[in-house]
Amino acid sequence: MTKNYNIALIGLGNVNRTLAEIIHTEGTALAQDLGFTLRVTAITDLRFGTLVDAAGVDLGAVLAMEPGQKFSSLGGSDDCDNETVIRTAPADIVAEATFTNPEDGEPALSHVRWALESGKSVCTTNKGPAAFAAKELKALAAKNGVFFEFEGAVMSGTPVLRLASGPLKGVGMTGFSGILNGTSNYIFGRMESGLSLEAAIAEAQDLGYAEADPTADIGGSDVRLKVTVLANELLGADLDSKDVPMEGITGITPAMIADALSRGAHWKLIGAATKNADGTITASVAPAMLDSTHPLAGISGATNAVMFDTDYLGRVTISGPGAGRKETAYALLSDIIAIDAQVN
Amino acid sequence: MTKNYNIALIGLGNVNRTLAEIIHTEGTALAQDLGFTLRVTAITDLRFGTLVDAAGVDLGAVLAMEPGQKFSSLGGSDDCDNETVIRTAPADIVAEATFTNPEDGEPALSHVRWALESGKSVCTTNKGPAAFAAKELKALAAKNGVFFEFEGAVMSGTPVLRLASGPLKGVGMTGFSGILNGTSNYIFGRMESGLSLEAAIAEAQDLGYAEADPTADIGGSDVRLKVTVLANELLGADLDSKDVPMEGITGITPAMIADALSRGAHWKLIGAATKNADGTITASVAPAMLDSTHPLAGISGATNAVMFDTDYLGRVTISGPGAGRKETAYALLSDIIAIDAQVN
Repeated sequence: MTKNYNIALIGLGNVNRTLAEIIHTEGTALAQDLGFTLRVTAITDLRFGTLVDAAGVDLGAVLAMEPGQKFSSLGGSDDCDNETVIRTAPADIVAEATFTNPEDGEPALSHVRWALESGKSVCTTNKGPAAFAAKELKALAAKNGVFFEFEGAVMSGTPVLRLASGPLKGVGMTGFSGILNGTSNYIFGRMESGLSLEAAIAEAQDLGYAEADPTADIGGSDVRLKVTVLANELLGADLDSKDVPMEGITGITPAMIADALSRGAHWKLIGAATKNADGTITASVAPAMLDSTHPLAGISGATNAVMFDTDYLGRVTISGPGAGRKETAYALLSDIIAIDAQVN
Repeated sequence: MTKNYNIALIGLGNVNRTLAEIIHTEGTALAQDLGFTLRVTAITDLRFGTLVDAAGVDLGAVLAMEPGQKFSSLGGSDDCDNETVIRTAPADIVAEATFTNPEDGEPALSHVRWALESGKSVCTTNKGPAAFAAKELKALAAKNGVFFEFEGAVMSGTPVLRLASGPLKGVGMTGFSGILNGTSNYIFGRMESGLSLEAAIAEAQDLGYAEADPTADIGGSDVRLKVTVLANELLGADLDSKDVPMEGITGITPAMIADALSRGAHWKLIGAATKNADGTITASVAPAMLDSTHPLAGISGATNAVMFDTDYLGRVTISGPGAGRKETAYALLSDIIAIDAQVN
């Protein structure tokens, strides 16, 4: 009999909806490859309500819902009591994809805590829980014999955390520099083509890269949360994101962009951290001008990348998508694969 | 009591000598990080002979040997019978770093086979065993309850095989393109600066990047072995390296290099493989002109890189060193770490 994990989807926005589509349409093929099946046994969403079925909810019906249709029409409830569902649903793993307040990580943080407290592993793409409480949540998971995975909090499905903790284990990580916000990188690229900051932001908004309020992207706070997660996980820091100095991209003028370009250099918004000789960690978010030979200089468009500085290998760089529906749903799938590897 | 692995070093050239240095000088610090100690219990080398000590050979004395000094001076033998040592040494893991004939993978291939047959795990940076007999050797390892790891066969310590099999598991790998030979990449870069092919080769030889006979580097056969390993491991192919069409870099003229550069493009020696719709795999080694937006276009100097094509993430690229003493010794260390993870 094939091993199975029961999944509770908390939040049914783009990410968990895409995970549901993957499970519904590709689950059988994936099971061949992965050695386990996935069954969605609970879904909550503020807009749709709650659907719980220990035998597996009807994903075909969920994915075919009409605008305005609610879970009561599928035998569920129109209410959404996340705490009760997270604590009592017949699930092994909670896929948390609701919302994270950049100030305190809520409500995602409480969702993760409730799940771990009730003996369920968690995968999440929300930055908040990992940035504000990774240590507490990992200890809580260990105490309850479950796992807390959050690869997607940094570069969507592009693996950074597990590259560092797995294949690069023992390499002597001394620091990292990353392009961790695709929107600001896209904007710098368009400014290199001659657009003003304002025009580049407007274009990024039209393309769906930037939010209506682009402050978190261009002001640096999105990168700051990711730098905090990376510094704490990769370098063993114990940083509070509010302690990381932060500078956004709005101080970089078209003239500075053009001047750099004339010398073959590129402005990038860099999130970085370094382990100092005394063991302390210095982290920062700031624009930097990189010459053409820098491994991050050629990372263009909405692509993200992290360059690791290491004792044994010098510089190692990974680049890939930092956003996207399918890419972020894969982050959750990769977390589930990692949970399975640890369960065994 | 701390867990320990006994290691037999087969070949004491640059790679295993550096691994011995790491164990000797950093072993205690590494044990803290990794949770196990390493003890070298056997060393063989054609120049020095054989040294076996179940309590651990005196690495300080070995590393301080004068030119011409042999292992008989340290209580060992001046003979080197690799088969007997590999089969009988009191070792858990054999670190194979001798020599691999590009025609049949010997003698490294036999060394690996003897180790696995006698119930010892193997780590190696030799391409031969993985390129010619990975399937057979992995089956042999499984039968004997041990492990065969060869990360360093592709990009030295930069993890490609374990990035694909671990953090990228389930991503739907459909192909890859790589810059897998630092020498030829360095030569193309110097030709972009105006050197002739001959002058660039001579410079690469002076710097120690290229062998006295640079045929394997510039003719493509080094890349062909690596493409074979990658295609078989990442795409589930069953390729014989001799079936992979191969073209080296000597057909690319300074005029072609200059012409590409004038359009912002770069010539690279690309080893690639793709999964076709019918499940077959097409692999190749050939120079290609990449425009500036290609993820591999900016990989300069002796750096290596592999770009994965995937269903869920599109393109993901990892770059890092593809050679070097310390870098390649780390590949062996990372193999040992991977063996430890599987033992547990």
